[in-house]
Amino acid sequence: MFGFGNVGRFFAETISQKREILADRYGLEIVLTCVTDTTGAAVSAQGLDPGVLLDAKRSDGGAAYCPQYGQPGIDPRSALANARADIVVEATPTNMTTGEPGLSNIKLALSSGMHVATASKGALVLAYSELMQLAKERGLALKFAAAVASPLPTIELADFALQGCEIKSIDAILNATSNCILRSMETGAGTFEEALKDAQRRGVAEANPRLDVEGWDTSGKLVILTNALMGKVSLNEVERRGVDTVTPEMVKEARAEGKSIKLLGTARRVNGHLELRVVPVAVPPEHPLFAVNGIQKGISIDTDLAGRLTVIDGGAGPLATAQCVLRDVVNIARFHMR
Amino acid sequence: MFGFGNVGRFFAETISQKREILADRYGLEIVLTCVTDTTGAAVSAQGLDPGVLLDAKRSDGGAAYCPQYGQPGIDPRSALANARADIVVEATPTNMTTGEPGLSNIKLALSSGMHVATASKGALVLAYSELMQLAKERGLALKFAAAVASPLPTIELADFALQGCEIKSIDAILNATSNCILRSMETGAGTFEEALKDAQRRGVAEANPRLDVEGWDTSGKLVILTNALMGKVSLNEVERRGVDTVTPEMVKEARAEGKSIKLLGTARRVNGHLELRVVPVAVPPEHPLFAVNGIQKGISIDTDLAGRLTVIDGGAGPLATAQCVLRDVVNIARFHMR
Repeated sequence: MFGFGNVGRFFAETISQKREILADRYGLEIVLTCVTDTTGAAVSAQGLDPGVLLDAKRSDGGAAYCPQYGQPGIDPRSALANARADIVVEATPTNMTTGEPGLSNIKLALSSGMHVATASKGALVLAYSELMQLAKERGLALKFAAAVASPLPTIELADFALQGCEIKSIDAILNATSNCILRSMETGAGTFEEALKDAQRRGVAEANPRLDVEGWDTSGKLVILTNALMGKVSLNEVERRGVDTVTPEMVKEARAEGKSIKLLGTARRVNGHLELRVVPVAVPPEHPLFAVNGIQKGISIDTDLAGRLTVIDGGAGPLATAQCVLRDVVNIARFHMR
Repeated sequence: MFGFGNVGRFFAETISQKREILADRYGLEIVLTCVTDTTGAAVSAQGLDPGVLLDAKRSDGGAAYCPQYGQPGIDPRSALANARADIVVEATPTNMTTGEPGLSNIKLALSSGMHVATASKGALVLAYSELMQLAKERGLALKFAAAVASPLPTIELADFALQGCEIKSIDAILNATSNCILRSMETGAGTFEEALKDAQRRGVAEANPRLDVEGWDTSGKLVILTNALMGKVSLNEVERRGVDTVTPEMVKEARAEGKSIKLLGTARRVNGHLELRVVPVAVPPEHPLFAVNGIQKGISIDTDLAGRLTVIDGGAGPLATAQCVLRDVVNIARFHMR
């Protein structure tokens, strides 16, 4: 596992706590053989004790200081070689400009013959087709449930439930920060700036909120989803306008009509090509995503055979993202390793 | 395929229309070798031409009258033996009192070494554990996406997206007829009887609506879902009250509070045992199924790791049910036959 932040820690905890369930349901034992972070890595091809690892992280601040297994300053390539893993979990912080360090990590894992479950979306936004091609050539799986609107089952829906369907369009609310800001403007009737400050106070928005409020995060997720479900697209094709363009007047007008403004990501097929848009839209009560508020996310997929299917989460944090990583790891083990 | 009504016909059409997509995506060719209905069967181990079959159904009214392949009056056992199928689709009309003819058909298929995808729920309501046990003993799959709130991805969600999760509760709106009647009482403010008559005129309710309006259909589906997702339960454990008990006063009172009455099926774990209930409930706007209206269906699942996930369809007919059959057939071929 590359990266040992919140998601990584919850993942380590979860595979330890759910050991029996994983054995019972899937006949599976997940052994963590390597964890890297900025300090270096903890490595043991026989398996790290998640308890010892989590203690080390809490008390000494880094994987490299884990008793017995810590290797300060070791590079990812050497760590991976020592780990002898079947699957690499990529859970480093995402970067949508360079895709790094995820991009290099994923390439390294695939070219080392390891399957990948990534929780970080930067690399996929920038190089979806290239990475998928690389995985395909090597006969490996590259999965990313945790990278796109976790814990919504988006790719799983397409993979396991929409057999034979053509997906006609995607509508989605994918960014919790933007959705919280809009909700707060709706209920408090303040300006965007006030709502943003409030969100920052509550820890919902980051100190540098640009990626979220300008719609980049939604656009990145939409690009990955569209690539996976509909066809090849890139980030520069997205018509993008963020919640920073929403005024109190727009919110008031929408409410007067019984509508609610959402930062809606949409992908649809128009005259044979894919049209992607991330813009604030006043949606009416009958819109399938009307009730997606605050930290909730939602996606609505229109298909030819099964009609419209909408999935909405209840508002989720890093534990749910870790569950998405587990989802991918289990599915790789079940469907790509036997 | 046992049964050749709407779902069966759409299934035959769909596998023909989606031939290329199924080959491209899954390397799969689905060959229909036998179709039975009340007239007998059409059988060809080399494969029936869906076009010829559908023409025969339209013009002569039965599979047995299909040119070249028709076998009037042949019994299911002989038809199955001649079909030499890998998978049996059970799509006969459902009966929740006896489970027949589905129950016998499913047992026959499993004991003949064939996987089963059933669109008919009666047998599963009455004998879920027995049938699953039979399938397990023979190393066969018994799937039922089309039998429970199709096209909602309920079982697929649990199978492919909720790895490691414990399901704490299920809330669901599973019966379109009841939901339409409630909607019509809400918008027209009439009595149950008036709303029912209106639904019958529009073809939404059957001539004998008891199974729907008394909550039996919802209870049956809830029992199957609970067995599949949470643990062993039977139909007589369900506390049941249908929409026939809803009065205009109840609807008015709910609306005055901003609520909407739904026939809600709920399963939850209380003090270690499972508590099932199908009753009309006035749900507030923040309830995840508040916006499920008319012919829509919805299910909301609360989990320990991924939080709450809610899936809602856009209102679906027999084509969507046929897609669910296809879903099961493809998944059986991918995961149980290779």
